[in-house]
Amino acid sequence: MTSINRQIHLVSRPEKEPVLENFALVEGPIPTPSEGEVLLRTHYLSLAPYMRARMYDGANYAASPPLNAPMVGTSIAHIIESRHPSFAVDDYVVAPSGWQAYSLSDGTGLQRINPDLAPLTTALNVLGLPGHTAYGALTRFGRMKSGDTLLVSAATGGVGSVAAQMGRIAGLRVVGIAGGKDKCRYLTEDLGLAAAIDRRGGDFAEQLRETCPDGVDIYFDNVAGALARSVLDAMKNYGRYLVCGTIAVNRDLGFPESKDNLQEILAKILVKRLTLQGFLFSDFADLTSQFHTDMSGWVKSGAVKYREHIIDGLENAPEAFLGLFSGSNFGKLLVRL
Amino acid sequence: MTSINRQIHLVSRPEKEPVLENFALVEGPIPTPSEGEVLLRTHYLSLAPYMRARMYDGANYAASPPLNAPMVGTSIAHIIESRHPSFAVDDYVVAPSGWQAYSLSDGTGLQRINPDLAPLTTALNVLGLPGHTAYGALTRFGRMKSGDTLLVSAATGGVGSVAAQMGRIAGLRVVGIAGGKDKCRYLTEDLGLAAAIDRRGGDFAEQLRETCPDGVDIYFDNVAGALARSVLDAMKNYGRYLVCGTIAVNRDLGFPESKDNLQEILAKILVKRLTLQGFLFSDFADLTSQFHTDMSGWVKSGAVKYREHIIDGLENAPEAFLGLFSGSNFGKLLVRL
Repeated sequence: MTSINRQIHLVSRPEKEPVLENFALVEGPIPTPSEGEVLLRTHYLSLAPYMRARMYDGANYAASPPLNAPMVGTSIAHIIESRHPSFAVDDYVVAPSGWQAYSLSDGTGLQRINPDLAPLTTALNVLGLPGHTAYGALTRFGRMKSGDTLLVSAATGGVGSVAAQMGRIAGLRVVGIAGGKDKCRYLTEDLGLAAAIDRRGGDFAEQLRETCPDGVDIYFDNVAGALARSVLDAMKNYGRYLVCGTIAVNRDLGFPESKDNLQEILAKILVKRLTLQGFLFSDFADLTSQFHTDMSGWVKSGAVKYREHIIDGLENAPEAFLGLFSGSNFGKLLVRL
Repeated sequence: MTSINRQIHLVSRPEKEPVLENFALVEGPIPTPSEGEVLLRTHYLSLAPYMRARMYDGANYAASPPLNAPMVGTSIAHIIESRHPSFAVDDYVVAPSGWQAYSLSDGTGLQRINPDLAPLTTALNVLGLPGHTAYGALTRFGRMKSGDTLLVSAATGGVGSVAAQMGRIAGLRVVGIAGGKDKCRYLTEDLGLAAAIDRRGGDFAEQLRETCPDGVDIYFDNVAGALARSVLDAMKNYGRYLVCGTIAVNRDLGFPESKDNLQEILAKILVKRLTLQGFLFSDFADLTSQFHTDMSGWVKSGAVKYREHIIDGLENAPEAFLGLFSGSNFGKLLVRL
């Protein structure tokens, strides 16, 4: 075992979009746990779009980390030293460790995982926050009915791919949106969706009409992008528009010019009796046990497949992270340490 | 009994906003019921903002009436001749009669009312469609909790005044929006709301901050007007934005220029976990019996008060109707024949 800890610090806040220079690799000693603490070694670090908002100073839905400290993030780690009564050496946990190889914890936010039940990485993917978010939103707000048309944006991503497959399992006609032919082929051939829309492949509204000729019952939106307006227009009566993410826009930088009109949007919501629903992962804590039961079963049976995009080396985390916003990942993005 | 029927016909569709010239008073013979029909005499005609959309040709959520036929509308009538097995002479009904003094019906859409249980006009007001709409929306989508702040636009109107009082009964802190000091005084002094905002009385956003310092949990919006954006910004986490009406805008004419931005709106919905919910009266048919029980009790006990703005004479219906959109009515607008 090395005696050097490696961390990726947030060393400056972005002036506009995040850049590599906002991060720095910092080496230092591996810390020593005090009474009541454990020492964690990170194996996999999850990179997800929501982390972008943490780089800025403004108040979003969670606090920003200080500068010159590890960037916030969730990882799979195992306990290599324990002075905590509830955790033993070699326990595996999901941990809010930040971007670093070794970290201390007093137990706050640690969730023990059983490495024999499922591959470790699933705890950051289908069996973790992305899967739980998709599951919670569709379970609580989706009102899924067999035969409904479910449209999912960023459908090959961590959240989107679970949402899409849950829809397929429930008997819905699922259409996924992704960037590029390979991803679209994956959606129809591997995940078994009814159709895919390539957002880089020509007129979106036309592709939407072709793939959803009767309109959209549920839109599971992970991007909040320029496509939103076309989808709103294609929503059927009693449609559910689930607002899950904003990959396409950086809230901290404001929004592009637009001719949208809240009054017109409200009139559409009224006449079509739409539900526009926002939510965060943390809202679905009460569904945890139900989620684990259902999702473990689906993963085991192969009904839910997952794809990982694994980058090796903590030092490559910043570049991989920035690639999330151009869609350069294909599957749930993980860094292996 | 006169032998002349009087009707208000829709004689032309509006080029822009509706004008008096779109209507004409037409006299003709009183029709004779065939087997299976009843002859109705109209006593009160309800005028409501939703009727504006019926004047245009486009498809909204209900069909437009033909030209040179009575304008569509709901009334309280009594049966003066019956060749229908289910209805007797002197029965009182709510009827989709249109704007006319006498009309035939084969029973479709007639709802019998008991004139001894409550004043007749309540069947077009608190115990009718406006009350039922407010009740259905708050019951199904409001998630009202004691102490929540409920904001209601057009709060002295037929729907708004019921929504506001239901909130007060449920222990919410209710703030009503209305145009002018008299209406605002009515909201606080007669209906017992916590505060009122005069939309003609200065900076709206500032009045909103003063009357809802902690933000808005539920917005019951009957107008979809220029105030919507300020309210969206003032919504609290998990807020419910109930999209009930669009008095402030004429959907058939498009919408005023706006710098709103759907992407930004979606981001707000996500971060605040808002629900934007559209609905129509017809969605709440299953709540009819529960609505009648609760609302009759509230009206009887005085917990729900109502105000009528009664215009005499069918010939005055067009002008009174157009006044709805400038807020010249104060209370539920009815025409007495």
